[in-house]
Amino acid sequence: MNHDDWVRQELRELSKSLGFRYTPLEEIENRFTRIRAGMEKQEMEALLVIQKMNFYYLSGTTQDGLLYIPLEGKPLLMIKRELERAKVESQLNEIVALKSIREIPSLIQTHCGRLPNSLGLELDILPVRDYFKYQELFPGVKLMDGSSVFREARKIKSPFEIDLIRKAGEIGKKVYQMAKKILKEGMTEIEFGGLLEATAKKYGHEGLLRVRSLNYEAYSWHVLSGLAGGIVSQSDSPMGGLGLSPAFPVGASLKVMRAHEPILVDFGTCFHGYQADETRMFSIGKMKKKFIDAYNACKEIHDAVLEETRPGADCEAIFLKTLQLAEKLGYKDSYLGPPGLQTHFIAHGIGLELNELPFIAQGQSYCLEEGMTFAVEPKIVFPGEGSVGLENTVLVTEKGYEILTPVSQKIFQV
Amino acid sequence: MNHDDWVRQELRELSKSLGFRYTPLEEIENRFTRIRAGMEKQEMEALLVIQKMNFYYLSGTTQDGLLYIPLEGKPLLMIKRELERAKVESQLNEIVALKSIREIPSLIQTHCGRLPNSLGLELDILPVRDYFKYQELFPGVKLMDGSSVFREARKIKSPFEIDLIRKAGEIGKKVYQMAKKILKEGMTEIEFGGLLEATAKKYGHEGLLRVRSLNYEAYSWHVLSGLAGGIVSQSDSPMGGLGLSPAFPVGASLKVMRAHEPILVDFGTCFHGYQADETRMFSIGKMKKKFIDAYNACKEIHDAVLEETRPGADCEAIFLKTLQLAEKLGYKDSYLGPPGLQTHFIAHGIGLELNELPFIAQGQSYCLEEGMTFAVEPKIVFPGEGSVGLENTVLVTEKGYEILTPVSQKIFQV
Repeated sequence: MNHDDWVRQELRELSKSLGFRYTPLEEIENRFTRIRAGMEKQEMEALLVIQKMNFYYLSGTTQDGLLYIPLEGKPLLMIKRELERAKVESQLNEIVALKSIREIPSLIQTHCGRLPNSLGLELDILPVRDYFKYQELFPGVKLMDGSSVFREARKIKSPFEIDLIRKAGEIGKKVYQMAKKILKEGMTEIEFGGLLEATAKKYGHEGLLRVRSLNYEAYSWHVLSGLAGGIVSQSDSPMGGLGLSPAFPVGASLKVMRAHEPILVDFGTCFHGYQADETRMFSIGKMKKKFIDAYNACKEIHDAVLEETRPGADCEAIFLKTLQLAEKLGYKDSYLGPPGLQTHFIAHGIGLELNELPFIAQGQSYCLEEGMTFAVEPKIVFPGEGSVGLENTVLVTEKGYEILTPVSQKIFQV
Repeated sequence: MNHDDWVRQELRELSKSLGFRYTPLEEIENRFTRIRAGMEKQEMEALLVIQKMNFYYLSGTTQDGLLYIPLEGKPLLMIKRELERAKVESQLNEIVALKSIREIPSLIQTHCGRLPNSLGLELDILPVRDYFKYQELFPGVKLMDGSSVFREARKIKSPFEIDLIRKAGEIGKKVYQMAKKILKEGMTEIEFGGLLEATAKKYGHEGLLRVRSLNYEAYSWHVLSGLAGGIVSQSDSPMGGLGLSPAFPVGASLKVMRAHEPILVDFGTCFHGYQADETRMFSIGKMKKKFIDAYNACKEIHDAVLEETRPGADCEAIFLKTLQLAEKLGYKDSYLGPPGLQTHFIAHGIGLELNELPFIAQGQSYCLEEGMTFAVEPKIVFPGEGSVGLENTVLVTEKGYEILTPVSQKIFQV
């Protein structure tokens, strides 16, 4: 059978029967409105969208291609591979084949009648070598940094997006419920983490978490037991754990889990690209009192953040309050990491990527807004002993907040 | 306890007891020799290594930092997080703390007595915004593209590296052996894929595969059954599969696997950063004759590639021969994808990343060399029906080749 015909006739039905949701055109158009407001502010005549998550946000597909957005007029979706599938997945109307990036200027010329005077590119992530190619392809065009246009637009989530994060949170709930049945003394951290990952995948978790960065890698299997939980590593996290090798020195390791140790499970899930992040504590038999006390402190700090969560609250101010509270509770030297290695955030924005706006953190003095989503994660670390923490993904609502990760916040004791 | 003290006293023993292998200084020094030969050829006075896999290759650690390599004199490892752990993991002698990238020039000045006149950066992957920062930090220094220096050095694997790929291949063998026990009719592709992933992790597979690209994402759970195997997607692969959503439109889906369908399992494993890639076919009950015949053709093409594999063989010539053979065997319109969507490679180099040199592919006219490793993967695709394939990771030896993925090449029928 011809592939194009099969895709045109069968793909939509098959995908939908297996739970695929396509981003509606109205949703996409609302996103364009937000993006264009940002372009206008920066006097940018057009944007060329290259990076996969921005591209998905504005086209509804992650087929290989680029999206050209003029300030006025219709966007042009150019697809390298696979065109017919992109036509099923994206609700945009103007979709054309792209054989080589050399064709981009002529496709734009044909579509819009002219090239722009200024063009935004994602300079926060675009490789230099590609940038040099675009300089050649668009001589005389002013290339600008469009990164902040995306960052600003994406920081407020629509009901469509919130529903996808909620679904990711529901997958997470199933993972944590199953975790209680899976966990056994003598199992290694990575064996446990692998089975949690398998559980999540069974319910539609997409396996890869995404973070906007050249070198930073996200993963789900952050299972840290006992002293492995006291190890700081390369990640911007209160503790990284031991990991499996010098090439992957974070997350679950081949360490065997023992009774009474604190077992921290920080497990992110992903549904249709949207992520929910959460952390819960486990123990085999009763956890030592020192860690239960520290966990209760995390819970108190977590609740204090939520109490402040509403549109208009200043992110840095919330962070600084948690520092005071941690000190008052007796955890000045273990809150968010050991002395000298403490991190400076208590929450990170979350959506298609794990490092979106807002950050409830030092130096981030701006207001929470309705529709923002963030993962709040107070953690306490004792080197050589272990760590504890609690994390939920939270939506800023008109009057306060809503938790999108509906798992019990009690310690899971098996 | 103090974190630094704990790391200095305990981390090495704990890591080693759990199977960590540190790259020996002699191995690293041999790599520097290769890198410096490339620098000399390009008249590059120094290299600044930023990207995680190049950084690991030349330092032995993936703690967050940068490595400065002058053409002469000792390299300087600058660590942002976590310094004490980097000192355990890297066998280099000159390791210093780095608080901000603004400090880099002064650290180099102190270490080497002067700044270089020319500096290589990884322009194939370095974000533009970072590049602009380095331009500011190194005024008057000629910034050059160092990408090919790494690419050339890394294309030949040392016995130390080959041993790690071999270990990854052994993990893969355990996965495929277990797969036969796990596979059941009525299971979804992703449930099967998730359990394979859990099996691999249990034996030390690091979970993330790596590919050198802004947008391309690698993953292990490429399980495609029946008609899902006939779907081309965004990846540069004969078939992408359905995947889980428009945000992850490749690999295993929620499709239920049925008796007699061809089930293609393309599962990569990773040990200490080094990857092995392989594909095997499964079926529940007997696979339909059409697919068995096509699989046998893949096997014939695979064996024909290996027959040509030796130092001095031209990569493009081998690829073109496989086109002729596929045509002779009656698969002209299904070999490496459906018409119009066929890919143009039969093997990709493999090591720390999945897209290293060599490529046995159209337009890649250069010779195989002893110590190269590649994954050879003939695949045949029938849209609307399914696909078959065979893949092994192979080492080019002095006189021929050695397969590093020692799984039976028969169809696994359960």
